[in-house]
Parts: sequence; structure tokens; C-alpha cells
Amino acid sequence: MLVVRNIGQLVLPRFDAETGRPRVETIDRAAVLIDGGRIAEFGPAESVDVPADADELDAGGGCVTPGLIDCHTHTVFAGTREHEFVRRIEGQSYAEIAEEGGGIRVTVEAVRRASVDELVGLALPRLQRMLGNGVTTVEIKSGYGLTVDDEIKMLRAVARLRSLQPIELIGTCLAAHTVPPEFADRRGAYLDMICDDAFLRRMANERLAEFCDVFCERTAFSVDESRRVLLAARRHGLTPKIHADQITQMGASRLAAEVGAVTADHLETIDADGIAAMRRAGTIAVLLPGCSFFLGVHQAPARAILDAGVPVAVATDYNPGSSMVESLPLVMSIACTQMRMTPNEVMVAVTVNAAAAVHRRETAGAIDADRAADLVILDVPDYARWMYEPGRNCVRTVIKGGRVVHRRQD
Amino acid sequence: MLVVRNIGQLVLPRFDAETGRPRVETIDRAAVLIDGGRIAEFGPAESVDVPADADELDAGGGCVTPGLIDCHTHTVFAGTREHEFVRRIEGQSYAEIAEEGGGIRVTVEAVRRASVDELVGLALPRLQRMLGNGVTTVEIKSGYGLTVDDEIKMLRAVARLRSLQPIELIGTCLAAHTVPPEFADRRGAYLDMICDDAFLRRMANERLAEFCDVFCERTAFSVDESRRVLLAARRHGLTPKIHADQITQMGASRLAAEVGAVTADHLETIDADGIAAMRRAGTIAVLLPGCSFFLGVHQAPARAILDAGVPVAVATDYNPGSSMVESLPLVMSIACTQMRMTPNEVMVAVTVNAAAAVHRRETAGAIDADRAADLVILDVPDYARWMYEPGRNCVRTVIKGGRVVHRRQD
Repeated sequence: MLVVRNIGQLVLPRFDAETGRPRVETIDRAAVLIDGGRIAEFGPAESVDVPADADELDAGGGCVTPGLIDCHTHTVFAGTREHEFVRRIEGQSYAEIAEEGGGIRVTVEAVRRASVDELVGLALPRLQRMLGNGVTTVEIKSGYGLTVDDEIKMLRAVARLRSLQPIELIGTCLAAHTVPPEFADRRGAYLDMICDDAFLRRMANERLAEFCDVFCERTAFSVDESRRVLLAARRHGLTPKIHADQITQMGASRLAAEVGAVTADHLETIDADGIAAMRRAGTIAVLLPGCSFFLGVHQAPARAILDAGVPVAVATDYNPGSSMVESLPLVMSIACTQMRMTPNEVMVAVTVNAAAAVHRRETAGAIDADRAADLVILDVPDYARWMYEPGRNCVRTVIKGGRVVHRRQD
Repeated sequence: MLVVRNIGQLVLPRFDAETGRPRVETIDRAAVLIDGGRIAEFGPAESVDVPADADELDAGGGCVTPGLIDCHTHTVFAGTREHEFVRRIEGQSYAEIAEEGGGIRVTVEAVRRASVDELVGLALPRLQRMLGNGVTTVEIKSGYGLTVDDEIKMLRAVARLRSLQPIELIGTCLAAHTVPPEFADRRGAYLDMICDDAFLRRMANERLAEFCDVFCERTAFSVDESRRVLLAARRHGLTPKIHADQITQMGASRLAAEVGAVTADHLETIDADGIAAMRRAGTIAVLLPGCSFFLGVHQAPARAILDAGVPVAVATDYNPGSSMVESLPLVMSIACTQMRMTPNEVMVAVTVNAAAAVHRRETAGAIDADRAADLVILDVPDYARWMYEPGRNCVRTVIKGGRVVHRRQD
């Protein structure tokens, strides 16, 4: 038994599916009792019945939130692309960079050359820093392999990383990230390959992936191609997700609603029809403000999406091309300052709604009796303060499944 | 003697005053020899003559830059203003927040209530974190006291902080930050007080401040009032600086040129006339991209200013109202992504040009023979990579005056 005592503010994010409204309840001067890795009791300190032999962890009067969930990342990758970052600032377009051999192709080549061990070695320190930022659950996509073996290799790296560090990792197959160069004139053959029953069966049966994602975009896959991939994946029990409406408005968010995707992600160019379709279908909008920040382009219309009652999650999109931002707390501040999301909307977006985005609604993203004890102890008295200090790490201690897995070195 | 060896890339930022062009020279596989706190020799590793008994510091193949200079901050303050941050996101204007008793007044009240010891206690951990971000020189303004005694108290806190931590601190008198409420109907009397010979003589003679700054803005001081303050300060040997053209275009950057200000800071609304005047006068533009980021408003026209050949520095503007961003490396990334400054322009802006902005051109902001050895060792192979990873601390070791003053805890 472990009691977290002297909590200045205990944060309980909620999402009301009926009204589509996020809200945050708080309990001041609270305590949380943990038993067998699960939350046994929580509430105002005087109401929590603490056994005499319980271990104690002093929260120092700080704020305690659920462990954060980063529900859209590409954390397994090899190589970096800082040269493109510089060229883009100098005025080159993504298309020009791609023509000169840059872009996603660079990462695909590096990932294909890397072994599972190498991918694991590169991703492990990233995950350790994410943990230090208060993140206890991370979704990771494949999509830089683009062959059957290399896509499986990426997700094997995710599987191996599970045993090497405490963050819960969720795999997503993104073989439909882009058409690889060797299939440039044979798009249909590439689609046949990634829609193949044997490939998708391995993804599902070996538990490499729970989700299947598609980059639905002019430069990647059309709406019809995306539909084909997602329906094939769904037949094998992989839940659809879509990179939708990022650069081009092609109706991808409406496709998300149509195929029962759990999320439509990005949405920088979503229109009113897309928002209405998502609201009707209950599709979660995963917004990626770190990506627009990193690229210096306009943000998704977060206010319109929120005000329509669509559930909103926020994630880092951590990847070497368009969002080299591994810090979810920084992205939370970007959501506040660049998207006008309020701290309570953001708090719900990185906990309850992010949990729903990766089918962990019942186990993660909330502080509730009998739920796994994933907690973040901050050195600030309330959660708005966390977002008010972009670039400072306010996380003092991280608890995963009732175990202290990170203490900040001061 | 100390040799920093195994440097992957040694960064030598330069600014050519004649052409107005920043550039960065680099030396690969370099070494730096330090003797008596100063740089004795530097260059390609094989060319540096290392005595057999020199201590060694292995840079691990990382990039080494000059210690960063944060040349515009309000690091000494009391209280925080996260509630305003939330209200602004919810759509309230700065004016509405001020009417409800918010705004700078909140910080002024908190600073007036605080003792020197309390101000020191609050600022010390901020400076320690700034050091951990690679910052070795920081300018700090008064301006939350707004009485003779409270302005002096703030700068005494700066003086005391010098002996408590390794960052070199430079004091600036900003008594002309705003007209305090008790003088609301007697602006002239407030100006008399802060232009008073005895007050300014104490600032200069007790070495509390080297610079005098004015917030020239519709809600603060007019161009004529600002001129009066700066000319009075100049008579006592305090060098003028101006908060210019932030919200309202009133010709403040032209005033900076007229009174020989070393810098004009902010410049979000600067026009072509102002840029031309600064270019002619050699005034340094101090841009504060963290402030516009934090407020969610438009950035200063950095490209127009740079392309006109005006020397540009970049700083955090760290303060609890409009830029709760203490990390200069994060602000460097914001300058890249939101202002389209290239990493080499930014590197010069936080070293050579920031040094000039605080009259430290001869002593700080560069790696040169016989200069104080202020160095930052990064865990990345080049400086563009530093800005390419917003929100990750790439600083492994910090050296101030030849002494290792910070090592990251990994």
C-alpha cells in the first residue's frame, strides 16, 4: 500500500459524450491510496482511510494529474532531418525538398538499414525523456519501413521496448504512410501488398498493432485507396485511424466517420461538413499543434471543433520530419497559446480523450477507484500553471501502475 | 589549464557591422585550451598545443558554442499570473484584464511586498535553470517596484544574486515600465521622481544599473516622456534602451536611434522608417519571439529587419505577464519556426549581438583568444540540431570563466 499525501490539487478530467463537453474537477488537499498497483481510494485527505503500515509519498503540496497519454507519435525512427528544417526556413517548399531527395524518403532509408536492436536503442532514450515529462502511455506508428518485413521490424521494436521501460506502448500499422519509391509506378501493387490478408493477419495475431492508420493526402493515398486499406484492416480486427485533412481538403475526416475510425488526426484544413460528420459518428479529433508549430504553418481550427462538441485529443506527432517535439507538456502549452484551447480542454485532451483515442478509456487517463495508478506529481500548485510555463519541466515524480518510475534530479 | 577535447563542431558566430550580415564559422574536430579562466588557444584538434599536465574535458563529439546571453529579461519578480493566461485564452483582452485588477499591477504589488531576500530566493532557481539551458550572461530589469526604494530593492536583489550563482548579471533600471496607480492622475510627478538626479546618481554610482529602459507605448509612456527619461539617464552614464513598437506604432524605434539607445526591443509593429533609422544609427534590434508566442499574437517582422542589415539579438523577455518562458533554447526554436530566422542568424543573435546589446562585446558571446572561457557543450553534433529539437534540453555541460558550473544529470 502506498499513499500519495499532501496533494495540493488532485485533477480529475472528464468528458461528457452526450454534450461533447470536456471539464476538469479538482479536489484540494487530497490524498490517493494505491493498493496492488491500482487506485484503492482518493479524495480530500481527511476522508481517505490510510492503513498505518502504508508507505508514504509526499506530493509537497503540488498538483497531481493522471499520467499523460501521447496518442499519436512516430517515436521509432532512425536518422534526423535538421538540414530540411534549415532549408524550409530558408524558403524551400516540402515538394522542392522531396525533389532533392529529402523528406520522408530519408527516414525510410535509414529505418530500412537499421536493425530492431538499433531502432530500440534509438527510441529508448526518447521514451525515457517522455516519461520524465509525465507521459505514461504512448502510441507508436510504423510507416518508415514500407515493406512487409520493415513494417513488422518497426513494430517488433515497439514490442521489445515494452519490456525495457515503464511506458505502456500501443502499436499502430501505418504501412499506408506513403507509396515507397520502388512502387512509384505501381501504386496498386503496393496497396495489394499492405491489404494482403497474410500481412494484416500477422499484424493482428502477433499483437504487433491494434490500429491501422492511413495518410489520406494528395501526395500519399486518395480517399478511395484509404478506404480500401482501412476496410481490409478492420476485417482483421485492426481499428481504423486516419491522418486526415492535413494539407489538402479531400474529405478524409468524412471518410473517418464513414469507416468507423476511432480518430481522425491533424485536421488543419477540416471544413464544417467534416466537423459535423465527426460529431455524428463520435470520431475523436486528434490535434497536433506541435506539428504546425514546427512547420510554421497554420493550426487546426481547434475552437470550431471543440465548440461543435467533437471530442478532442492532443498529441505530439513526434517525428523527425514535421514535429521534432517529444515534449507533450510543451505541446500542451502550444495548444493553449496557438490554438486558444483552455487548460481544462487541454487537460482532458491529453488524458481521458487521448485514452479513448487508443482504446484505453477503461484503464488509463483518469484517476478512479480500481483503475491502474498512473499519476504525475508536479512542482506547481495547479494544472493551468503547468501550461503557463512552456519549456520548463514541472514534473517531479511519475507513478506507473502504482510504482514510482521517475524522480526528477534537482 | 583545461583542454576541452573531442569537439565535433566548434561554433564561432560573427557579425559584420559594415554589411550588417551575421554568419557562423565552424571548426570540425576541434579543441579549446583554457588557462586562468580565459581561452588560450582553439582550433582543429591537431593544431592546439596541449601541455601534458592539462586537465581534460571530453566533449563527446558534441557541438560547442559560446555561452548564451539572454539580453532582455525580467527574471526578478514575485507572484505568477496564470489566471490571466487562462482568461486571455478565453478571449479577454489585456485591457479587460487590467480593468479587473489584473496585469502588471499584480506583479508590482507582489514585488513591493517582497523583501530583497524573498526576491533573491525566487530568482535563484530560475537562474539555475537558465544556466542549465546554456545561458551564462543575463540582463535583468527592474520595473515592478515603481517607487525609488522598490526599484532599488529589485536591483539590489540582482546584485546579491551575483554572488550566489555563476551567471553574470547585468542590471537595467526600468522605473519607466508603467505609471503606478498612485500616480495615475500625476504622471508628471512620477516622471519627476524617476528623472531625479539623486535617484539616477544612486543607480549609476552604486552600480545597480548600467542601462535605463523605458516602455514607450500608448498605455505606458509617450515618445516625449520616454525621451525625457532616457536623456536624464544618459547624463548619469546609464545607456538608453527602449521597449519600442510592441503594440502601437508611435515612432519609438526612431526615438531609439535619436537618443543613441544601444537597443530597441520588441518591434512587433516596426515600420520601414523605423528599420531605416535603426540601420543608420546602428541600433540593435532585440526580438522577443517567446513573448508573441506566449500571447498568441503576431511576431516582429524579423526577416525585414535582418534583410535591412540591422543587427538582431534574440532574448526570452522572461516575465510572469507576457512571456513565462525562461528557456532561451526554446525561444531560439521559436525564432526559427515562427519568425523564419535561420539557425545561423539565431546563433549570432544569442551570442555576438546579444553581447553587444548589453555592452559585453569585448568579453562575452564569442570564442576568441584571451576572452573569458564561457562555453556550452551540447549532446548534438551541430548547432542547427539544437533548434531543431524544441523542448529537449541538449545542453550537457556549461563552462563559465573556465570553470565547469553545470553538468546535466542523465
